[in-house]
Amino acid sequence: MTPDAPPKPIRTAEVIAVGSELLGSTRVDTNSLFLADRLSSLGIELRAKSVVGDNRRELAEHLRRSLERVDLVILSGGLGPTDDDVTRDAVSDALGVPLVEHPEIVDRLRERFARRGLQMPDVNRRQALILEGGVVLSNPNGTAPGQMIVRGHQAIVLLPGPPRELKAMMDVLVSGDGALAKHASRERLFRTTLFVVGRGESHVEEVAQPVYSKWLRHEPPIETTILAAPGQVELHLMTRSPDAADADRALARARDELIAALGGDVFSIDGRSMEEIVGQLLLDRHLTIAAAESCTGGLMMSRLTDVPGSSAYVLGGAVAYSNELKTSLADVDPALIAAHGAVSEPVAVALAEGIRKRAGASIGVGITGIAGPTGGTPEKPVGTVAIAVIAPDGAAHVRTFSLFGTRTMIKFWSSQYAMNMVRRLLIS
Amino acid sequence: MTPDAPPKPIRTAEVIAVGSELLGSTRVDTNSLFLADRLSSLGIELRAKSVVGDNRRELAEHLRRSLERVDLVILSGGLGPTDDDVTRDAVSDALGVPLVEHPEIVDRLRERFARRGLQMPDVNRRQALILEGGVVLSNPNGTAPGQMIVRGHQAIVLLPGPPRELKAMMDVLVSGDGALAKHASRERLFRTTLFVVGRGESHVEEVAQPVYSKWLRHEPPIETTILAAPGQVELHLMTRSPDAADADRALARARDELIAALGGDVFSIDGRSMEEIVGQLLLDRHLTIAAAESCTGGLMMSRLTDVPGSSAYVLGGAVAYSNELKTSLADVDPALIAAHGAVSEPVAVALAEGIRKRAGASIGVGITGIAGPTGGTPEKPVGTVAIAVIAPDGAAHVRTFSLFGTRTMIKFWSSQYAMNMVRRLLIS
Repeated sequence: MTPDAPPKPIRTAEVIAVGSELLGSTRVDTNSLFLADRLSSLGIELRAKSVVGDNRRELAEHLRRSLERVDLVILSGGLGPTDDDVTRDAVSDALGVPLVEHPEIVDRLRERFARRGLQMPDVNRRQALILEGGVVLSNPNGTAPGQMIVRGHQAIVLLPGPPRELKAMMDVLVSGDGALAKHASRERLFRTTLFVVGRGESHVEEVAQPVYSKWLRHEPPIETTILAAPGQVELHLMTRSPDAADADRALARARDELIAALGGDVFSIDGRSMEEIVGQLLLDRHLTIAAAESCTGGLMMSRLTDVPGSSAYVLGGAVAYSNELKTSLADVDPALIAAHGAVSEPVAVALAEGIRKRAGASIGVGITGIAGPTGGTPEKPVGTVAIAVIAPDGAAHVRTFSLFGTRTMIKFWSSQYAMNMVRRLLIS
Repeated sequence: MTPDAPPKPIRTAEVIAVGSELLGSTRVDTNSLFLADRLSSLGIELRAKSVVGDNRRELAEHLRRSLERVDLVILSGGLGPTDDDVTRDAVSDALGVPLVEHPEIVDRLRERFARRGLQMPDVNRRQALILEGGVVLSNPNGTAPGQMIVRGHQAIVLLPGPPRELKAMMDVLVSGDGALAKHASRERLFRTTLFVVGRGESHVEEVAQPVYSKWLRHEPPIETTILAAPGQVELHLMTRSPDAADADRALARARDELIAALGGDVFSIDGRSMEEIVGQLLLDRHLTIAAAESCTGGLMMSRLTDVPGSSAYVLGGAVAYSNELKTSLADVDPALIAAHGAVSEPVAVALAEGIRKRAGASIGVGITGIAGPTGGTPEKPVGTVAIAVIAPDGAAHVRTFSLFGTRTMIKFWSSQYAMNMVRRLLIS
């Protein structure tokens, strides 16, 4: 143990982003995402984060409360030279520690201005005020230095708000012998994620809970969070360990048990999206794909072509919104539409077969449905979507889905289920 | 004053987003932006916001602290049926108010599942637990009802996390006689927004600044924020007043001066998106549209068909990713591709003309470009996109754009510029 290591390691943290502009309806604090990532690399858990306006009294109060809860508080922003840069003063108030001007920082600031042929405005001297007993964190990308102060087993870090400045300084803090790394435990955080399609959140929970509750009693214990996202349910597994190999092994075993329970509905175990997974499967098998989309209006093809390199397997297809285009672009027999209606399994199959032939693709997809909010009937309500996939061997797979939600949600889910049918075909 | 109006109006608020997944390095809480906007429409200031994990004890503690500082606390998320949905219990703990099961909510949940032919899992009963003395806020878009409880001059609101559910419910709360509107002061915030396309943020600033700086000295003063968003630059004008007519008049005058300065680049003054604006123009003029998209992969048609009722004017078209499909779906002469390359103005025009004829549409659009990250050449670097629009009279308009950014950004900007060309044609 080094002499300046604290009596116990830092395990928990809160982040406070300072800035009234972050409390409006337009700007999001993204620094905290970066900080969460770097903290977790040290095994430090971000327990909460907040945004506070440029108000000295309120910020001091928030900091005091945070220090009642966690080992480390990182404040970002409010280190500029102007009156509404209140972070230094607020931390001084909260800790009861005075600010001291560091003449060498004043000199450095003066030089920085001089190098640009400018004279330093006097207000910039405020940026040289450092908490008594604190350590100066140099800022390679800006004028505002950061600072860090250790009190008992707790630490407070002040970083500037501009992401380029904050990131460079945080990277130094968490690196090998960085000031934060020195105070962290040997334990690190490890994670893995499973994406599931075709089951609702509560049904995933029902199946997964008996599995993951067991792993909670494992050593090291594995915590699991279930999350419903557009088009998928996500299982996030997390564990803490001083031993990377040990943690990876445990996570892999837990993940494999969950896959065994949930079967082929697990489509991604590395954070990749459905369009990336399907794209990789097509690429690996040297197959191409074409689609004739009606209610999705091209969304499935647009998602597939969001993936770099997708021109190797996406040939394209038709957006056959009108019945005439179903015929002229995908060779659907008008008599079939008259007999079954445009939203029907026979028409979905004809769309898929027609576009597959036209494009000379290995796989054809046909999607036809009612995205709403109007156009539904008692027999075919809004959300009725027929999806067909023609396999490389010419076999047709077709299903009708009953989807809920807004027009854009029905479009998204339709594109997700269509890609999932392709995926299941390719892994079968 | 209604009997249940509080002794003093609600002026300050905090928002607490609940969810451990929001404390990682990938997910951002965007609900709070929407909530800030709606709160400010009632003249309620968001003083701070925070994200807390799915931990009952910690959440209760955070809520207690917030209630020491502000009049209103809105909690979002954690109202699902599973074990890690702790918001109800945490609020109950913080306020010392028990939870009571509402049998009519249980019945409604059962019906909702039954409509999908499913049996309600027993865990979903937790969603029927309401704070004693609280009001149930119905959720038109999901299973989790919200709730609101008033204590003295303070209010606590619980809303579900999914944005679609939260937004619909918040809109009801702040509407004319909504539960939150009743507790706010008479002063309201009024806004208007201009969307600009075809000019960068700093160029909009240069032109708009002399106009809006004048309105800052007006009574009531009008504040302007400039914001770069995907595909557009936004000017947000805002003023505060107890008199709606007064505020609306001032905002309309300021807006008209900005339109005079920025001209036809202002495409929306009511928050409507490019696809909604173009759709309305087509509808008003009884025109139809078809497109042959290459690098955008169907994104323009998907965006156009995101608008309810778009089947009245979108006929569809082709996603002509491969050269063969450019010919077989949009009748592009292979010799033209050989002579000029697939990414060229002649091919863009041929795509637009071919698909217009095939679909029998009034207007045809052709898009061909290099979305990257690979495929660029010195003469045609990544981001080179040729876009053609054929007018109802058969005249061809074609432009080549040089776009920057990631693959998905280049796709989005291409679809935006293509629709903007259609818009300028229709208003000329």
